[in-house]
Amino acid sequence: MSVVAETDPFLLAASGRPAPHTPVWFMRQAGRSLPEYRAIRGSGSILDAIKNPRLAADITIQPVTRYGVDAAVLYSDIVVPAHAIGFGIDVAPGTGPVAENPLRTRGDVARLRPYEPDLDAPYVGKTVDILARELTVPILAFAGAPFTVGSYLIEGRPSRTHEVTRSLMTQETTVWHEVMERLAGHAIESIASQVDHGAGAFQLFDSWAGSLSVQEYRSYVLPHTKRVFDELHDRFPHVAGIHFGVGCDHLLEAIHESGCDVVGLDWKSRISDARRRLGDDLVVQGNMDPAAVLGDIDTALAAADKVLEDNAGHLGHIFNLGHGVQPEANPDALAAVVKYVHDKTKRATP
Amino acid sequence: MSVVAETDPFLLAASGRPAPHTPVWFMRQAGRSLPEYRAIRGSGSILDAIKNPRLAADITIQPVTRYGVDAAVLYSDIVVPAHAIGFGIDVAPGTGPVAENPLRTRGDVARLRPYEPDLDAPYVGKTVDILARELTVPILAFAGAPFTVGSYLIEGRPSRTHEVTRSLMTQETTVWHEVMERLAGHAIESIASQVDHGAGAFQLFDSWAGSLSVQEYRSYVLPHTKRVFDELHDRFPHVAGIHFGVGCDHLLEAIHESGCDVVGLDWKSRISDARRRLGDDLVVQGNMDPAAVLGDIDTALAAADKVLEDNAGHLGHIFNLGHGVQPEANPDALAAVVKYVHDKTKRATP
Repeated sequence: MSVVAETDPFLLAASGRPAPHTPVWFMRQAGRSLPEYRAIRGSGSILDAIKNPRLAADITIQPVTRYGVDAAVLYSDIVVPAHAIGFGIDVAPGTGPVAENPLRTRGDVARLRPYEPDLDAPYVGKTVDILARELTVPILAFAGAPFTVGSYLIEGRPSRTHEVTRSLMTQETTVWHEVMERLAGHAIESIASQVDHGAGAFQLFDSWAGSLSVQEYRSYVLPHTKRVFDELHDRFPHVAGIHFGVGCDHLLEAIHESGCDVVGLDWKSRISDARRRLGDDLVVQGNMDPAAVLGDIDTALAAADKVLEDNAGHLGHIFNLGHGVQPEANPDALAAVVKYVHDKTKRATP
Repeated sequence: MSVVAETDPFLLAASGRPAPHTPVWFMRQAGRSLPEYRAIRGSGSILDAIKNPRLAADITIQPVTRYGVDAAVLYSDIVVPAHAIGFGIDVAPGTGPVAENPLRTRGDVARLRPYEPDLDAPYVGKTVDILARELTVPILAFAGAPFTVGSYLIEGRPSRTHEVTRSLMTQETTVWHEVMERLAGHAIESIASQVDHGAGAFQLFDSWAGSLSVQEYRSYVLPHTKRVFDELHDRFPHVAGIHFGVGCDHLLEAIHESGCDVVGLDWKSRISDARRRLGDDLVVQGNMDPAAVLGDIDTALAAADKVLEDNAGHLGHIFNLGHGVQPEANPDALAAVVKYVHDKTKRATP
C-alpha cells in the first residue's frame, strides 16, 4: 500500500466520513484531452502504451499534477486481462475493443483461462509500484465488470444495445454464467493485484449495464458483480469499491445490492433522488455532465454548482463527472472545477 | 394516398380502435438480416442505394412478402434530407453517419437550408409512388427527429453520449434552437412529401434522445419535436405519427406531450408501466427484445408472449421490437413471431 494518510479526503468521503473538502477526480482524467498526454503517448493501441510502466505511470500522474485531483486512476483499459491471457482482443484507436473471433459458443469458454496478473501482465503491477512511490493521493485500481467486458468479447465490436450478448444470456444461460464467473475471477484478481501493489480503492466499470432491463440485470449480472465486491471485501476489508455505469438509473436499487461502497451516477441521475431511493447515508460519486467541460469556465462552474446543490452538503460525496472526460474537453474548465469544488466544500477538520 | 382499406389492422390499432388482429411490423425489417436483401443490395452507402427507386422499393417490399407484416416502412436513413441539401454527410458502412465538417458554430447554421423533397431528393417520392402502386399495407413515412439528426451533424460521428451536442445546446443556445428549427422543418417537409406520395402513417426516429436528462429534453428538444407532430397533424389530420427512441423510459411523460399518436417503447420499458403513467388509452408500439430473435423460434415466441401479456389485451397496441432488427437476426424467428401474434390476437371484427 502506498503511504496515504488516514486524513485523506478521498478515503474519508468514500467511507461516508467527514473530509476536509469534497474530493474530486474525473473518469478518463488521464488521456486525450491533455496536451501533455498527446505529447508523450505516441500512436497505436492503448494496450501497447499500458505495457510500458514508466509511460503508463507518467500518463496516470499528469492530471494529478495539472488539476490537483484527489485520486489517481490507473491508466488502463477494461480488456487488459482478456488481452493478456491471449483471448484475441485489441483496442482499435477511434473504434474501441475489437475481437476478431468473438465468444459465441460453449467451445469458446475455454479461451477464458484464469488471469494471473503478475505473470500475464506484470507491467500493470510495475506501473502501480511506480505510482505508489511517486504519488501522495490514493491510487484507484481499474477493472471492467463481468457484463461489460463480456459484452465486448461476445459482440466482437462496440455496440449500443448488445443484442448478441443478451441473446447468449437467455439462449445459452449455462454458457453465459460460466463466462460471467470467469470474468468475475479476472476482475477480482486484477483488482486484488493492483491493491497488493499499492492501490487504495478501486472502481469497477460496468459501463454498459444500462442496456439491460432490471429483470435481466438481476438474473444474469448482479450475482457476478456481487461476487466481485464480496470477495474483494473479504480480502481487503478497508478498501472501498466504486460501481459505475451509464444509463443505470432504472437499476440503482439492484446495483446497490451488489455490495459496492460507492454508487457512481451518470449525468442523467440525480444525487438527491438516489439518496431518496437508496438511503440517506448512501455514498455517491458523480455526476456532472461531461458536456459542461467542453466549453468556457463559467458553464463548467455553473454545472458544478448544480451538482453540489443536488448533494445538499451530505457527507459521502465524491465529485466526478457523470461519464469519462471527452477528448474535446477544456483542461482549463476541469482545473477550475477542481479548485471551485475544493474551495466551496472546505470544512473545519473534525 | 395508396388504397388502404378503412379496416386495415395497422391504421385501426394506431388510432386505438379494435382491429381484426394486433398489427405487427419490425423496425429495420428491410435490410441486412434478409438473404434476399443481401442478394440485391450491392455494396456502398445506403444513401446511394436509396437513390435507386426500384431498388429501394424492392427492399422495402421484401419483408412484407416474406413475413406478412402489417406495414411497410420506407427503406431510408435519417440523414437523407441533410445529405440531399449538400450538408456533407454520408453513411459509412459498418460505422454509421459521418460528417467531415461537423456543425459546430453559428456560421455552420447556414449550411442547413430548407429541404425541398421533390427537388432535392426526387428519388424518395418516386420510391413511395412505386410502393403505393404495389402494396396493400400502409406505407410508413420515415424521418429523423431534430435532436437525433442534429446529434449526427454536430458530433460528426456516431456517439454514445453526445457530449458535443449537449455542450452546444447549453453554451450556444440560440444556435442550438436555430439548428433544431431548421431540422424540424426538414422532418416536416420530408414526412409531408412521403404522405403526399402515398404514405399512410409516419415514424419519427429520435433514437438517441435517451442520452438527455428530462430537463434537457424539455428545454432543448421537446418544443421542436412537438412542432413536427403539430404541423403534420394540421396538414394531415388522419395520419398517425409514431415517436421512437431508445432508453427513453425516463422521458416518457415529456415525449407523450409531443402530441405523437403512438409512443414507441424500447425493450427496457414496460407497456403496463407506460399505460399506468400516461393513461389507459395510450397507443403503444413495441417492445420485444431484439435479442430474442437472434436464435431459435421457441425463444422468440416466449418473448412475444411476454409482450402480449404485458399489453394485457388492450386496444392500441402495434407489435414491434424494442429496437431495430439486427443483422444477425433469424428471419425464421421473425416470421414465426408475425404468425404467432396474428393468431393469438385474432378477434371477431366489430
